[in-house]
Amino acid sequence: MTLPRRSHPRPLDLNSGRVDLTHGGGGRAMAQLVEELFVAAFDNEILSQGNDQGAFSVPGGRMVMSTDGYVISPLFFPGGDIGSLSVHGTINDVAMAGAVPIGLSAGFIIEEGFPLADLARIVTSMAAAAKAAGVPVMTGDTKVVEKGKGDGVFITTAGIGMVPAGIDISGDKARPDDVILVSGSMGDHGIAVMSQRESLGFETAILSDSAALHTLVAAMIAAAPGIRVLRDPTRGGLAATLNEIASQSAVGMVISETAVPLKPQVLGACELLGLDPLYVANEGKLICICPPEDAETVLAAMRAHPLGGDAAIIGQCDADPHHFVRMKTAMGGTRIVDWLAGEQLPRIC
Amino acid sequence: MTLPRRSHPRPLDLNSGRVDLTHGGGGRAMAQLVEELFVAAFDNEILSQGNDQGAFSVPGGRMVMSTDGYVISPLFFPGGDIGSLSVHGTINDVAMAGAVPIGLSAGFIIEEGFPLADLARIVTSMAAAAKAAGVPVMTGDTKVVEKGKGDGVFITTAGIGMVPAGIDISGDKARPDDVILVSGSMGDHGIAVMSQRESLGFETAILSDSAALHTLVAAMIAAAPGIRVLRDPTRGGLAATLNEIASQSAVGMVISETAVPLKPQVLGACELLGLDPLYVANEGKLICICPPEDAETVLAAMRAHPLGGDAAIIGQCDADPHHFVRMKTAMGGTRIVDWLAGEQLPRIC
Repeated sequence: MTLPRRSHPRPLDLNSGRVDLTHGGGGRAMAQLVEELFVAAFDNEILSQGNDQGAFSVPGGRMVMSTDGYVISPLFFPGGDIGSLSVHGTINDVAMAGAVPIGLSAGFIIEEGFPLADLARIVTSMAAAAKAAGVPVMTGDTKVVEKGKGDGVFITTAGIGMVPAGIDISGDKARPDDVILVSGSMGDHGIAVMSQRESLGFETAILSDSAALHTLVAAMIAAAPGIRVLRDPTRGGLAATLNEIASQSAVGMVISETAVPLKPQVLGACELLGLDPLYVANEGKLICICPPEDAETVLAAMRAHPLGGDAAIIGQCDADPHHFVRMKTAMGGTRIVDWLAGEQLPRIC
Repeated sequence: MTLPRRSHPRPLDLNSGRVDLTHGGGGRAMAQLVEELFVAAFDNEILSQGNDQGAFSVPGGRMVMSTDGYVISPLFFPGGDIGSLSVHGTINDVAMAGAVPIGLSAGFIIEEGFPLADLARIVTSMAAAAKAAGVPVMTGDTKVVEKGKGDGVFITTAGIGMVPAGIDISGDKARPDDVILVSGSMGDHGIAVMSQRESLGFETAILSDSAALHTLVAAMIAAAPGIRVLRDPTRGGLAATLNEIASQSAVGMVISETAVPLKPQVLGACELLGLDPLYVANEGKLICICPPEDAETVLAAMRAHPLGGDAAIIGQCDADPHHFVRMKTAMGGTRIVDWLAGEQLPRIC
């Protein structure tokens, strides 16, 4: 029998090609996209196993798993893009348990017609973020939906990590008198994204703070293993995140307006846009709650790290039975910092 | 100071309510959706920790991680829906390494205006599938995109599992003379979904085979720890999956057309629609490749399991340097079973 010659597809056209439905179909076109773009960019031994799952070894112990979907619009913004964000954001959710990240999975949902050049830019950025963080993308999946049934690209990453022995960090562990710290200025990510949104036509020098915080967390828990709570104030910003923790831990909180680090440009942009910076998303900042005796140690550890230079103590927990978050204002009054009722900035992450 | 009374939102209207952008905003509406729908349905201790990550303990050893995005259309189909499918599919990807699944993450991307009743139906089905499989949804995320920027709901699940000591199953381990088995009839899922697609107006009694295969896998590796390859033939069906394995293992394969289990209704529907059943997706079947001396043992173990009653030996690997998959036809000839070139059935999973 003479066997037909197997066709050799031309390489992906990363300049002017577009994603079509065949790239999600499970056949040769999908295999080519995965090999030439994803596996080439992520370039690690686990992904290169070529199976529908990545295999790796773990020591026994306490582990965490987290996931986030990224639907940010626009896909590219000052200081990052959906690719780097999808790595940083999920590493951060893993790190907020005090865990050392092991690896990520990545699921792409791509709209038919999306330029392969933009996809390559996103995947390259994602791979660079993963390599810089030392956290491999170990497994992935690609789906394509018809034009008009998606919006460019959505990425859902999941992450896993191991919690070091003796560390027990959770949102329900804040106690009255515990001290509340933040690792830097609030609102940078949200304002950077807003600046890119065409409809606002707003320009600012603010860059997103998108960053992987796991090495900052490692430095903090090395200095103070008794840290009670870590959480990154993303959607809903500082205000929503403090309210979540207050509710989960059944404590009140009092923060000081003048102590919350804010960049003057962010404050100015917020005033212009009618936004409260306490509700604007961050992607490279964390909130830490620790026993009062650890506060200065934690603050020093944060400030000694490149991602914590502007860290500050912003307040303290109390025994308020209503679990309110209150703020001492610059004017000397006190106001309630409520949950965000609705959506302030849609598709900010 | 008199504190303002905190508003108590009314319960979610699961009859006639719709998802709006506030349900993805990080504020109180999202917290309500998560608590009243997701946490209530999934109802497990890890998710109920209420953190941005789920924590659990693992023994040391070899672990796998997998992810899949589910964009199936329609969302509800005979034998399942996107919720149960998103649990089964990812459990299966974990199980195909011979691993015992530990848990899942779930990321939802919901289109604004999607009926809460449909979301509840999906989440309830997902929770039921997870409970039936004994694999908890440990952590999750919810995003909402504007109307026209998505398509109802997309779900991306990730899964992790532990590989038992001594098990080493991977797509690159097939060797010449190894035997190829399938666990049951091919094409049921794809045809069930096609039957629901309005544009085809096609009716059939075929149900999707959507099912979690981890207990079948456990029975198989208990009987024959030397199994070389397991893979579930989803998108692209048996043909694409065999080609993937042939390429990865650098072997050829010869299968027998008459040995491939096919339901008469599926065969009939395929003839009507001009589809080749070898390329139609399955969601509750697996391909197994094992050394020849294990083949009968594996077959017996499969047939003894409720999900392997129609298991069959369908062919054997050979040393073909072209790594072709060939099929002995019912007519006595031989033809190449090529990769699927493009997309046969878009959004089938």
